[in-house]
Amino acid sequence: MKGVILGIAPTARIVDITHEIPPYSINEAAFVIAQAWLYFPKGTIHVVVVDPGVGSERRPILAEVGGHDFIAPDNGVLSMIYEAGRPKVHVISNSKLMRKVVSRTFHGRDVFAPAAAHLERGLLPADFGEPVTDYIRLPATKPVQVSGNTWRGTILKVDRFGNLITNLHIDDVSGARIELRVGLERIHRLALTYAETAIGEVFAIVGSSGNLEVAANQASASKALGCGAGAPVELEIFYDETR
Amino acid sequence: MKGVILGIAPTARIVDITHEIPPYSINEAAFVIAQAWLYFPKGTIHVVVVDPGVGSERRPILAEVGGHDFIAPDNGVLSMIYEAGRPKVHVISNSKLMRKVVSRTFHGRDVFAPAAAHLERGLLPADFGEPVTDYIRLPATKPVQVSGNTWRGTILKVDRFGNLITNLHIDDVSGARIELRVGLERIHRLALTYAETAIGEVFAIVGSSGNLEVAANQASASKALGCGAGAPVELEIFYDETR
Amino acid sequence: MKGVILGIAPTARIVDITHEIPPYSINEAAFVIAQAWLYFPKGTIHVVVVDPGVGSERRPILAEVGGHDFIAPDNGVLSMIYEAGRPKVHVISNSKLMRKVVSRTFHGRDVFAPAAAHLERGLLPADFGEPVTDYIRLPATKPVQVSGNTWRGTILKVDRFGNLITNLHIDDVSGARIELRVGLERIHRLALTYAETAIGEVFAIVGSSGNLEVAANQASASKALGCGAGAPVELEIFYDETR
Repeated sequence: MKGVILGIAPTARIVDITHEIPPYSINEAAFVIAQAWLYFPKGTIHVVVVDPGVGSERRPILAEVGGHDFIAPDNGVLSMIYEAGRPKVHVISNSKLMRKVVSRTFHGRDVFAPAAAHLERGLLPADFGEPVTDYIRLPATKPVQVSGNTWRGTILKVDRFGNLITNLHIDDVSGARIELRVGLERIHRLALTYAETAIGEVFAIVGSSGNLEVAANQASASKALGCGAGAPVELEIFYDETR
Repeated sequence: MKGVILGIAPTARIVDITHEIPPYSINEAAFVIAQAWLYFPKGTIHVVVVDPGVGSERRPILAEVGGHDFIAPDNGVLSMIYEAGRPKVHVISNSKLMRKVVSRTFHGRDVFAPAAAHLERGLLPADFGEPVTDYIRLPATKPVQVSGNTWRGTILKVDRFGNLITNLHIDDVSGARIELRVGLERIHRLALTYAETAIGEVFAIVGSSGNLEVAANQASASKALGCGAGAPVELEIFYDETR
Repeated sequence: MKGVILGIAPTARIVDITHEIPPYSINEAAFVIAQAWLYFPKGTIHVVVVDPGVGSERRPILAEVGGHDFIAPDNGVLSMIYEAGRPKVHVISNSKLMRKVVSRTFHGRDVFAPAAAHLERGLLPADFGEPVTDYIRLPATKPVQVSGNTWRGTILKVDRFGNLITNLHIDDVSGARIELRVGLERIHRLALTYAETAIGEVFAIVGSSGNLEVAANQASASKALGCGAGAPVELEIFYDETR
């Protein structure tokens, strides 16, 4: 893919975000790109190739959101990006902007990489194909309120430290008392930093993405709890009567 | 290696193809570079450091093929590249174009990286050493015809999805009926796309390199069949009498 | 982090040294950066984010050594760098040169990456904060002489080949006879190159960093000996009376 990009757009600057999305994990890829894109400068072209349906009828698309461009299969991997703005989406159907021979199994190289390079060189989204509005949005993986103070969510991703990143958010951490139920554990410690916890302790913390995470100090929370992506979590918040 | 390159050729653009060749796997590296190089623009300098014989008498070489340059140990890792054109090969022996102290165990840093950078800056292959014609070509891992319609091949590589990439090719896929024998399995399904198969199904497919692959939909064919690189495969093609 | 850097310093050239430091391994990171920095050109800005104490009182620092700049947490990860010259160290405290919102768990993105980018754009170390001299130096992991010819050291790192890299050095390898005790093994073979050993043989060799390594030809010494980073090693050197 990088060779194809540089062949068309020799001055393009290419940055890898990750090569560690588990195969077929559209949900995890959707979270990772949603977490990263805003830290890049406007005008960045993001190429997202998590594409288990390659070769089927799923369309390649080009989406503009908030001054950034996204090139991806239309399989829902951009779902969380769409929530961030008013997406303008075009299908990529102009075969003149693809490699001459398009394989059935690697559109990253033959469709997405050339599209990114041509866009970098100044082509407009309309040059790639028609605008579409029926692009796929996965059902939002949003927490569900199951009682007054209790929310049910899910683990979006396990990072390389073994931290469990949930889709739960706590707006006001200061003084909050919680019970977070994950696997067989009930976690009451809501830490502000890793450094305030004991080595091996399992605790909850608001991570760099703003999401509530389950972490273990210098250990893997995923191993300690036996939980991974997709597992359910339940958060109960206790409000002091005196507050 | 990247630091050494940028110290000599500050404007060089460096792209990683892979850091995941298993140690000592010259055959797999030969396949990976053969699969990738043509997608890069002409003038690209490819540095291939899979070098189990480092420190022995094996020579560093510089090969020109089809407008690309390759810098590698002369251990056969470029064998499949040589098949693509008329290689012009020079040995790299000019110690002025190496680091002052050359370690016995890391020629990537001390010999290959400086050579690539000096070549990028405009030196000519002849500046590095004498032309040679006795460079090493590994016996081609080509399929063997064992009967009229039956070919015996080998698995070249297992990719990160667990797909088994063979050295077999099928020119005309449409309508072909096959039996592919791998491990203890006999595979009859020759799919055009992943999307047309059932989850977990093991099938054959022509991959992005044009090679016949054994894949499993959203699963690892390597695990399902217990096979890896180097394992034998046998392909029988049945021709309909009516065709 | 790369997005943040390119947003501030669009022409910065970013090179990854490694993403494979085991979590929390300050000692291993200290060795890896000490091994790599000198191969980069002067003026390089090295960003070292192995940061188990993120969110605690540990300070972000900027160190100048030998014409290179290092941006890191003040947790000792630069200890081996300090030994290479006369470090000038500034604390990074100027919040104008950080992201507006600094998370408690990812200073790599919010503090270190912006600092590197502003430095690249021409700001001076003094712009980031006050000079400090009480930066943390970990006790040097230097070998201890336990008798006339015997030294006790430690394994600093296991590389991807399974080689055990020790903190031991042998100045004059030629003709030296040794016994290297690692795990339950006593190694007498001191090889000059991998190529001179037998496949599977476990031997000692001076590696590309100048450190004594335990290696196995086309196999993992770490697996063969059951040893990893932190394990003790003992080296005895025998001097021939005739020398």
